[in-house]
Amino acid sequence: MKNRKVVPGLLEQMRDTLAALHETEGVGWETINTIMAKDGLKDAALRRPAEWRELGLSVRRSEAVAASLESRRMEQRRARWEKTGLSVITAMDPDYPDLLRHIYRPPWVLYYIGRLELLARPQVAVVGTRQATIYGKRAAEDLSAAFSHAGLAVTSGMAKGIDAAAHAGALRGSGGTVAVLGSPADVVYPPENRVLYRRIVEEGLIVSMTPPDVSIHPGMFPMRNRIIAGLSLGVVVVEAASRSGALLTANEAIKENRDVFAVPGPISSPRSRGTLELLRDGAAAQVLEAEDVIKHYRRYLGGVRIPAMPSYSEPELTEQEARIFRLLADGPASAEELCHRSGLTFGLLHAVLISLQIKQRIHQQPGSVYIAL
Amino acid sequence: MKNRKVVPGLLEQMRDTLAALHETEGVGWETINTIMAKDGLKDAALRRPAEWRELGLSVRRSEAVAASLESRRMEQRRARWEKTGLSVITAMDPDYPDLLRHIYRPPWVLYYIGRLELLARPQVAVVGTRQATIYGKRAAEDLSAAFSHAGLAVTSGMAKGIDAAAHAGALRGSGGTVAVLGSPADVVYPPENRVLYRRIVEEGLIVSMTPPDVSIHPGMFPMRNRIIAGLSLGVVVVEAASRSGALLTANEAIKENRDVFAVPGPISSPRSRGTLELLRDGAAAQVLEAEDVIKHYRRYLGGVRIPAMPSYSEPELTEQEARIFRLLADGPASAEELCHRSGLTFGLLHAVLISLQIKQRIHQQPGSVYIAL
Repeated sequence: MKNRKVVPGLLEQMRDTLAALHETEGVGWETINTIMAKDGLKDAALRRPAEWRELGLSVRRSEAVAASLESRRMEQRRARWEKTGLSVITAMDPDYPDLLRHIYRPPWVLYYIGRLELLARPQVAVVGTRQATIYGKRAAEDLSAAFSHAGLAVTSGMAKGIDAAAHAGALRGSGGTVAVLGSPADVVYPPENRVLYRRIVEEGLIVSMTPPDVSIHPGMFPMRNRIIAGLSLGVVVVEAASRSGALLTANEAIKENRDVFAVPGPISSPRSRGTLELLRDGAAAQVLEAEDVIKHYRRYLGGVRIPAMPSYSEPELTEQEARIFRLLADGPASAEELCHRSGLTFGLLHAVLISLQIKQRIHQQPGSVYIAL
Repeated sequence: MKNRKVVPGLLEQMRDTLAALHETEGVGWETINTIMAKDGLKDAALRRPAEWRELGLSVRRSEAVAASLESRRMEQRRARWEKTGLSVITAMDPDYPDLLRHIYRPPWVLYYIGRLELLARPQVAVVGTRQATIYGKRAAEDLSAAFSHAGLAVTSGMAKGIDAAAHAGALRGSGGTVAVLGSPADVVYPPENRVLYRRIVEEGLIVSMTPPDVSIHPGMFPMRNRIIAGLSLGVVVVEAASRSGALLTANEAIKENRDVFAVPGPISSPRSRGTLELLRDGAAAQVLEAEDVIKHYRRYLGGVRIPAMPSYSEPELTEQEARIFRLLADGPASAEELCHRSGLTFGLLHAVLISLQIKQRIHQQPGSVYIAL
């Protein structure tokens, strides 16, 4: 499917035709639906405008479609996909994800770069605010790592903040990660995620329904959110302000009857208010640890070996490290206070603090005050 | 009721007799229940051991009770109550709280110091761990203040940590506070709560079922927890580790069919794990703001004027203070970062930071790093 032939077979021809319709200006989901309902992809390249009109298209659309399907234009389109590294999957393909087929107006065409096989994996979406706190990013990353370790692919929108942390965490495990972009799949957006984008291209999958060369506009993002929810068995919201954009994917998940989960946080954090409202109102199930999500999807993980994962609060820490981390989880403290409260000798405490810093679990602030990350 | 006469009336006589039975060694709840069921308080002082045996008491108990009710012993007991400043209320009194009557084995006798009328108020319990975090204590205090402002009395166990913060917050409002002690009501326990104890004696109510001069033993605390739950319409757990003692009052509340609420917190905080487990398992309703509790008890607050309360996250802050506090709620930051992120001039920011410190909403750490409290 990736190395597309110059003279494609029938299925490839129909796929290219569908993508061409998708890229034709003025042709939307409904128009393609009309054509598909009348089995209109076959011999589409030979059809003249009058014949398109017979299929139910308007005069203007009939002419646009006929022009768009001319062999010269088709060649140009294939060349452009080739050049940008994009491949195409359509709703006609057997690889098109079943879950996605069942959403309202599933996309006829998806462009992708990377490991298409990830679409066949059971997926969990991890999403949240771009203005994430250290706590939120840590939770998103650790939960996503655990999902990925368990064999679930982690799907998100590659926005900065929670989304980026979710992809980064998922890349630590074997489940893989799927980034659904609003912008074309060959465009890095936002630009600060360049390194992450490259890693996902190599180890994960980038997906978008936006054709290449289309410039970014806000209207792309609602559809992106619906695809994220549509690909996923469940959506985990990590941090979101009240009535914020970060809740839109959760709303799509609710509309599409997917499971919705939310990670709680302090009631004093504006960034947790949206998730806490979802939980309070019974719109989401609470995620205290990764298992709260994974246990719902065991049946999809039959063939996947699941390594034992430590609980979220103390991943891969020695007993002494865990003890110091727990003390700091209660609030910032100086080395002197930690020494007093832990009962460790100062030398040992020092070693533990350095180790925790290397493991990026704590941060030393000016004045030797340590905070848990 | 407070100034007890030397020659008491019939009701007072029966109350004193009931308290005497309660204080008699070897006489427990069941024995008193047997006596009460046979209307055995009347003429109790005149009854000889043989007559007590006829009421169903064992030989040993009959003798102990007859001795305990001798007029000399009764006088001593009254003198001791007088000296310690304690008053007595019994299950026979019309002032005995109706809600408490309905628990398993309601205490026959309660000793108290302070404003007895608070027992007639609708009460909400606010409880949690003694090893509370700054976040937990702040949440307990602010929620309790809001409950008290709304006219609810706040009941707790006067332990250090969450309990102490709950009482302190409740004293800021008009609803009052009820401290239920495991130790005798005239003993300050734990000793570090001396100042709080004195304030509650003057402005609130101290209650205990433990007679004066009885030394403190761990067996007192389970009954204390049941009384806290029994006095309250609902119990709010603010912070509790998993499977910790702080959850016992919540368990009593569940057993006694009272509402159980829990305050969420970070999934990385061991001190919030118990509350998050209650929430995840559907054993408690989530409290995001005081109104989540108060709204359930509006019908009990008919006669109480309810002042408008600002939401928990930004109590009594100016717009600029709230803005800086929100930034810090996301994580510690230096003055430079805050200046950059808020867009305030450095001079104005400085004034706002000082004001927030005076209002005890933020704390300045070494190196001019500020944290939200």
